[in-house]
Amino acid sequence: RLNGAVLLAQLQQLGNIGCDTDSGGRTRIALTDDEKAGRDQLVAWMRELDLDIGIDQIGNIFGTLLPATPEEKSLAPLMIGSHIDTVKNAGALDGCYGVLSGLAVVRAFREANKQPNRPITIAAFTNEEGVRYQPDMMGSLVCAGGLSIDTALQTIGTDGTRLGDELKRIGYAGDIAPTSVVPYEYLELHIEQGPILEAEAKQIGVVENLQGISWQKITIQGNANHAGTTPMRLRNDAGWAAASVMTFLRELAASSTNTLATVGSLKLAPDLINVIARSATFTVDLRDPDEQQLRSAERRLQAYLAVLEQQEGVKIVSKQLARFEPVIFNTRLVDEIETSAQRLGFSYRRMTSGAGHDAQMIARIAPAGMIFVPSRDGISHNPREHTDDEQLLNGAQVLLDVVLQRLEM
Amino acid sequence: RLNGAVLLAQLQQLGNIGCDTDSGGRTRIALTDDEKAGRDQLVAWMRELDLDIGIDQIGNIFGTLLPATPEEKSLAPLMIGSHIDTVKNAGALDGCYGVLSGLAVVRAFREANKQPNRPITIAAFTNEEGVRYQPDMMGSLVCAGGLSIDTALQTIGTDGTRLGDELKRIGYAGDIAPTSVVPYEYLELHIEQGPILEAEAKQIGVVENLQGISWQKITIQGNANHAGTTPMRLRNDAGWAAASVMTFLRELAASSTNTLATVGSLKLAPDLINVIARSATFTVDLRDPDEQQLRSAERRLQAYLAVLEQQEGVKIVSKQLARFEPVIFNTRLVDEIETSAQRLGFSYRRMTSGAGHDAQMIARIAPAGMIFVPSRDGISHNPREHTDDEQLLNGAQVLLDVVLQRLEM
Ligand SMILES: NC(=O)NCCC(=O)O
Ligand SMILES: NC(=O)NCCC(=O)O
Repeated sequence: RLNGAVLLAQLQQLGNIGCDTDSGGRTRIALTDDEKAGRDQLVAWMRELDLDIGIDQIGNIFGTLLPATPEEKSLAPLMIGSHIDTVKNAGALDGCYGVLSGLAVVRAFREANKQPNRPITIAAFTNEEGVRYQPDMMGSLVCAGGLSIDTALQTIGTDGTRLGDELKRIGYAGDIAPTSVVPYEYLELHIEQGPILEAEAKQIGVVENLQGISWQKITIQGNANHAGTTPMRLRNDAGWAAASVMTFLRELAASSTNTLATVGSLKLAPDLINVIARSATFTVDLRDPDEQQLRSAERRLQAYLAVLEQQEGVKIVSKQLARFEPVIFNTRLVDEIETSAQRLGFSYRRMTSGAGHDAQMIARIAPAGMIFVPSRDGISHNPREHTDDEQLLNGAQVLLDVVLQRLEM
Repeated sequence: RLNGAVLLAQLQQLGNIGCDTDSGGRTRIALTDDEKAGRDQLVAWMRELDLDIGIDQIGNIFGTLLPATPEEKSLAPLMIGSHIDTVKNAGALDGCYGVLSGLAVVRAFREANKQPNRPITIAAFTNEEGVRYQPDMMGSLVCAGGLSIDTALQTIGTDGTRLGDELKRIGYAGDIAPTSVVPYEYLELHIEQGPILEAEAKQIGVVENLQGISWQKITIQGNANHAGTTPMRLRNDAGWAAASVMTFLRELAASSTNTLATVGSLKLAPDLINVIARSATFTVDLRDPDEQQLRSAERRLQAYLAVLEQQEGVKIVSKQLARFEPVIFNTRLVDEIETSAQRLGFSYRRMTSGAGHDAQMIARIAPAGMIFVPSRDGISHNPREHTDDEQLLNGAQVLLDVVLQRLEM
């Protein structure tokens, strides 16, 4: 039986770390002091449950509930994971819900005085959000062998820091080789972060697949000049060029079935009221559940940039910050999740994940599956992110049920 | 006779203050430490010429060459002015050229051992550029009674500082009442900062008028949400909305004869790769030599913002940062400048000033006129701003000639 009270209390407690009382949002960006405080709290809770704690070289935290026999101990662990880093001014649930529900599963074993028949590892992966260091899902990507630990540690952040330095600074540079961690199976419980479950009044999302993600940083180099003296036709305006890419991307998305396109970050230089922008640096986030469609969106963007370069007399450089193909989750696990939701009497639907998740990376090395619960108004990456307690507990119950099924207990 | 060597040397020396050797640009933004260093240098040069130095309450610096008799001393001064503050990463000429040419005129009197028949005041006005504190042309505007000294001193800058505090901090809060300074006539020599004189191979611009300027700060409030889970049609994307204003303004300018429209500064929040922007704050710089056209551009922008608010579900607030009507310079002075250019054998053309200048403000309280020299490639507000030495000296010679004519000497 799941101890819902502890789960909800821990969600609140972890959510208070790095919280700004004005906005109600918390900011625990990867490898900052506030994120370290979150890590310390998680590790303390893992200690309370007497888990076997390990930290790997990219800072992923693993807390393992061990089985009884040496033979069982040597089995690959059933892993339940997610992340505890946040974006800026975030809600309390994104990531934390999955990790703390993992602890709740382990707590159910402890409270029932039972031991599993193979290790159960609760994982908190480093830098899932990717707002300071790109790519996102970095900790799980390194585990899955998709990025070498050396390259990952050399990553330079948006604030100019080196990831390896920050990891050491906060004391979470562990010694386990990330690629040595290979789960038997991987489960991740997460809030939907989108509007679908709520709109259809479903309690559980059975995640079948996860869309592809393409992140680019685009730099446009124009010419600074005087806003009052430079005729429109003689301008090489990096700011206007960036704006026209943004409006183009909205049209690109509108003209396709599923493609999403977002420019979330943009900076101009010299960024002054009466100076035509010399340069614009911005990010592009493209997503599509279909790899061919995602490639087509990337190609259309490149073609547009080439035309724009000529038209405005600017120089445009784009750099890939992250590129992940769509993932289809393990059919057996997806079916198992659906069966659990059914057995527990929850309404559910099969669906695609819009957000990237650590499960997307771990799916490269182990069967993986995901469970969603509804997000109120479909809002996430915002202090107003919310899921009712009851729905949070529904999801955790499905997770526990799937774990018990997978362990045949 | 003008001492060209000293003028050119001083331009270089002042241009070195606040200069970044990497970019070649200098940054002496109003009331910063580097701008104080520029002021100190100017005051030292005024002392060398034994001028009567005064500082007013908004920090305008006045250096006056006095005539001989008490009666002449009591006459309103012929004023030659401009500014020595710069934008970020600026050229060496914008503003400084006018002030230092004023010193060159006075130096010609000193070197010829002559005294004028009325005071000649060289003025360096505070915060002409307006990049830190709006409105621009602030020092001359306060002199002209267009902005009260109290309001001006309370201005909060883009960096959160209060103008009055910064003025005190750098030691340039003087005691002269700005409105007590009323020139007999006002002359300003400036680089064109635009491409016209160069394109037509003219040596001198006889400035007839100066276009109107409208500066606004626009804030768009949308909703932060997840870039991967939020369907395009459910977005309230403040970043996209700002971009669509920028592309609209380009079309607005294209559809009118003379209107210029620039968005030079733009900031998004939270400014993260996978978060739809919650807010966008940007500036709009609209200009037109015709007041009716300028009003029409302002109205079209407002109408567009109203439509956009509905369309994207965002809230838009605009705030006027500066608003100056077009100015027509004093006919007698314009004619005099033309006559001088002719007499000295320079090619010239009558023209409109695209940039705002202190002359635009002083024109409210005294006959005012302006002289332009060409800008290479029409570039200004950029380290590549350049005018050949010979052309700089041509302009200073016209200025000296006009002064002598006006004093009937
Ligand atoms: N779940 C989540 O918000 N992940 C961040 C990576 C993404 O942008 O999808
Ligand atoms: N001359 C000059 O650059 N003035 C700054 C004010 C403006 O933006 O026109």
